[in-house]
Amino acid sequence: MTQGLTYRAAGVDPARAEDALSRVRTRIARTKRPEVIGDVGAFGGLFASPGADSVLVATTDGVGTKLELARILDRHEVVGTDLVHHCVNDAMAMGAEPLFFLDYFATSHLDRDVFARVVGAMADACATQGCALLGGETAEMPGMYGPDSYDLAGFLVGAVRRDAILDPRSVREGDVCLGLPSSGLHTNGYALARAVVARAASAQGRDLRAVLETPRHDLGGASLGDALLRTHTCYLASFRALRAAATIRSIAHLTGGGWEGNLPRALPSGLGAAVDPGAWEVPALFRVLAELGQVPGDEQWDTWNMGIGLVAIIPEADVDAAVRALPDSVVVGRVERARGDGRRVRFT
Amino acid sequence: MTQGLTYRAAGVDPARAEDALSRVRTRIARTKRPEVIGDVGAFGGLFASPGADSVLVATTDGVGTKLELARILDRHEVVGTDLVHHCVNDAMAMGAEPLFFLDYFATSHLDRDVFARVVGAMADACATQGCALLGGETAEMPGMYGPDSYDLAGFLVGAVRRDAILDPRSVREGDVCLGLPSSGLHTNGYALARAVVARAASAQGRDLRAVLETPRHDLGGASLGDALLRTHTCYLASFRALRAAATIRSIAHLTGGGWEGNLPRALPSGLGAAVDPGAWEVPALFRVLAELGQVPGDEQWDTWNMGIGLVAIIPEADVDAAVRALPDSVVVGRVERARGDGRRVRFT
Repeated sequence: MTQGLTYRAAGVDPARAEDALSRVRTRIARTKRPEVIGDVGAFGGLFASPGADSVLVATTDGVGTKLELARILDRHEVVGTDLVHHCVNDAMAMGAEPLFFLDYFATSHLDRDVFARVVGAMADACATQGCALLGGETAEMPGMYGPDSYDLAGFLVGAVRRDAILDPRSVREGDVCLGLPSSGLHTNGYALARAVVARAASAQGRDLRAVLETPRHDLGGASLGDALLRTHTCYLASFRALRAAATIRSIAHLTGGGWEGNLPRALPSGLGAAVDPGAWEVPALFRVLAELGQVPGDEQWDTWNMGIGLVAIIPEADVDAAVRALPDSVVVGRVERARGDGRRVRFT
Repeated sequence: MTQGLTYRAAGVDPARAEDALSRVRTRIARTKRPEVIGDVGAFGGLFASPGADSVLVATTDGVGTKLELARILDRHEVVGTDLVHHCVNDAMAMGAEPLFFLDYFATSHLDRDVFARVVGAMADACATQGCALLGGETAEMPGMYGPDSYDLAGFLVGAVRRDAILDPRSVREGDVCLGLPSSGLHTNGYALARAVVARAASAQGRDLRAVLETPRHDLGGASLGDALLRTHTCYLASFRALRAAATIRSIAHLTGGGWEGNLPRALPSGLGAAVDPGAWEVPALFRVLAELGQVPGDEQWDTWNMGIGLVAIIPEADVDAAVRALPDSVVVGRVERARGDGRRVRFT
């Protein structure tokens, strides 16, 4: 006789998601802001509206296949933090302070420990950045993901005073591109990085994990895994310091698409940027990856941030004050007329 | 000599995502509301804040493994529409009207046609519900998903006047549970439904697709695939009509977890509901699935909506007016003291 089918037998156990969530409830509660109304468990999260002089800024992001490295190397906290930082930076690129965040966690079979590590790290990052973790969805979808794999999406809403929206149309020829250092690839270009590592492993006849875990002289003793799993830098504190010291015309968050894919998004049509790649030292990780994979130069700059995670466009008159406020910032280039050759970032 | 690695060779082509998006830009533009500021392409979407007397309601959802059925049967529009409707209903369960929506689309290799069909359907659903499609993220993640598979997450922000928030604490013993019909499983319990269909296919020695596509007498001539791929009903128009005709105390959107998992979320602690399952006819799809899979009764009600997609709790005095306003609604039960046996929905 065949047994009756149940949801659990089909691979979904709502009690598992409930238990997983209960492990991080205290950390989520710490993200509560005064605007949050009511409790978790409702059909939607409630947050007092910031008032009609404000504009809401909404953004959604993932962390790409950095997830796979986090899984292989059992470093799940990193991607939780990354997701929050990526979203905070994107909203900030419009001039906004974060208000609240929601997450989507999808997997074939929910591992409660992994879930608690990922979502716990998200909650901690939200608390640090002063952002409420207002809700989330945990999806158990048998057969959709490989064993132990999961995907993440983050959603963030921030607010900016209407007169403080960063508008690329305010950028003028001659304005200065101020770069802020990245910690590594952040959350972009991992498919390429992983292909490089896979090729190196194959060429050396070694296991992928071994290649990722071996300390390297050319990375100052760090392993490729360490360097690739550095947390996406959150620029909120730098943004606040810069805003207090200088006029910010616009901001480019260098994510998917590298320099050409992002810097023009902070410029009005007709303008481009002349960037001096010698203005800062490209971190060793990028050089090592480029060499191992023989990645062409253009391809590197069109895919990775190459050591600069954020570019603020400021008036030349404010450069000294800006650099004093942000001692690790560096003038990386200048706004110029676009050349009309289809590319708007010109490396000098 | 080995070739230099590129992002495209590693399986990611940003131009592909750009082209896919260009195919739906006109349909996305039609969702624009007066509050939307600026253009798509910025790091975050801008939306004028609704004012301090409003409360923002944020929700995130997926569509679960209904995705797999949509893929097998090449009916991708359905899940795009579903995602918007699911989010709209969740925000509405707090009393909110939708403001804006963002989507996350993740796959291993982006199929531009499929993307345009899914996101185009989302845009159309947003336009119909008066909700701006404010942004989205398209993630191409080689190796993360099976061939032709993709995942979706939706994020919606709505607004409700502070004094119009639906609050379960306002519910009183003796209040009436008014049910609104569902179109089918909506977006929940598909792992169980798929397991049922897979077992039937195996028992009949037939191909999964054949079982899904065969017209059935017990479904009034529809196939299982047709019945399983009906669109998640959007209750926004019904909600507005009900709100105009009656006091709504609270709303339960019957999604993952079925009746016991959702109806208590619309009730204060200490209260439960006595529900008469004979008050409406459970649609044929549920009966067919239960029979094919020998799914125990409790399991059906704890997983599926069983034909009622939304329950509004209203005062008894308003029942006549409510039923006049919503002719397809049905009184399904009544609020009572919880029995203290751990379950708060009692079937009479």
